[in-house]
Amino acid sequence: MTERIVTAAVVIIGNEILSGRTQDTNLREIAVTLGQWGIRVLEARVVRDEEDAIVTAVNELRARYDYVLTTGGLGPTHDDITTACIAKAFGVPVVEHPEIAAMIRSREAPPDVMAARLRMALVPEGAGLIENDTGSPPGYYIGNVYVLAGIPHVMRSMLASLRTKLTGGLPVQSRSIVAYSGESRIADGLARIQASHPDVDIGSYPFMRNGEPGSTLVARGTDARTLETVIDEIERMLASIGVQSARE
Amino acid sequence: MTERIVTAAVVIIGNEILSGRTQDTNLREIAVTLGQWGIRVLEARVVRDEEDAIVTAVNELRARYDYVLTTGGLGPTHDDITTACIAKAFGVPVVEHPEIAAMIRSREAPPDVMAARLRMALVPEGAGLIENDTGSPPGYYIGNVYVLAGIPHVMRSMLASLRTKLTGGLPVQSRSIVAYSGESRIADGLARIQASHPDVDIGSYPFMRNGEPGSTLVARGTDARTLETVIDEIERMLASIGVQSARE
Repeated sequence: MTERIVTAAVVIIGNEILSGRTQDTNLREIAVTLGQWGIRVLEARVVRDEEDAIVTAVNELRARYDYVLTTGGLGPTHDDITTACIAKAFGVPVVEHPEIAAMIRSREAPPDVMAARLRMALVPEGAGLIENDTGSPPGYYIGNVYVLAGIPHVMRSMLASLRTKLTGGLPVQSRSIVAYSGESRIADGLARIQASHPDVDIGSYPFMRNGEPGSTLVARGTDARTLETVIDEIERMLASIGVQSARE
Repeated sequence: MTERIVTAAVVIIGNEILSGRTQDTNLREIAVTLGQWGIRVLEARVVRDEEDAIVTAVNELRARYDYVLTTGGLGPTHDDITTACIAKAFGVPVVEHPEIAAMIRSREAPPDVMAARLRMALVPEGAGLIENDTGSPPGYYIGNVYVLAGIPHVMRSMLASLRTKLTGGLPVQSRSIVAYSGESRIADGLARIQASHPDVDIGSYPFMRNGEPGSTLVARGTDARTLETVIDEIERMLASIGVQSARE
């Protein structure tokens, strides 16, 4: 069976991430969710609130991956430039989306505040909406680019509504086993097992616990039976060199 | 006074970040630390453990920024390919660094384990060392690329020892004020203040607290007096439209 791998990239937009003011958590949330849908995040970029940086990242990545998800820069203030940049990346004008505008106009506000709010009704021409249930305006998609809010709970709601919009492949599953040993002792055996299972991605993540080194060995792939085989082989390899282990 | 802006990019290497298994915290740590040294992180990329992805990211970014810092992929297992990739990016061979090798050999181990450990003594030819005080092997630098471990406490120790190796500009400072209002109400006034202070980067970060919207307004720049002026102007602007505020 030849399985098509469905890929994605994430563009995290915002000076606050690059200054260290804010700890990003959206990438991990997106990666886990898309993984469950059989979509593999293969690259992420964090870019500042500058047109060139955003346009370049979006255009490079949308040509390279099946899907691109962006987070951040959708609000009404001067530093929210994502929509203008996405439109520029696609070479289309920015237009007011009647559905978002109607939603915004349904809440009364003084004229200047309404004008600012209506900036959140602007989308690149041709964009479709990504609903969210938080009460704030929707995100949108154009081509293979999905534009989400940066605020984590709003992002999460928009991400959930992508479930019906994105087409995944086989879900990526993982199995893991902990080896109670430093990595050097297990490196050769692990490399041999990896070499004999090119369809499985074996990672080794070292840790220290109570002063003793250990390593969590994670096998990731789309076939559950192969993953079990790989973990079995790792378990036997560890036993053969006298390293204690525990399946997780 | 014309001030040179010193820039950096970060490359986070590791499938575990892109699968969502691990929440990266190194980017924020690096950004905060470099900011204190007057070095601005302008871009970050998260790439998988694949040669093409790593080599391309490193070569694109080292041409574009004063410094590039990488994290991850320095261990002894098969998925630790950072050193081979950095060497390839620079077109130099991988060689055993005598100082690291001596350090590793000083701890006895069976031959196969020693061989695996000695992989951590490999560096691109011409690399200098980045010490760390955690007992694990040092990182290294070559050209303007600084190669750090991925494990946070080891990364942090290596980062600290870059203090004498990197030359920063004026430290970036920030001042902030909280506006108790949604962003739309303050957007116009904020945009005017930003327009009159191009040297200052004003960000607006909305939040909800007890069901009420607010926004933290952050001014970042290298001149403390200008930052105070900007915060004063924001405070007056907020008062003029009847929005309560509190300096942080």
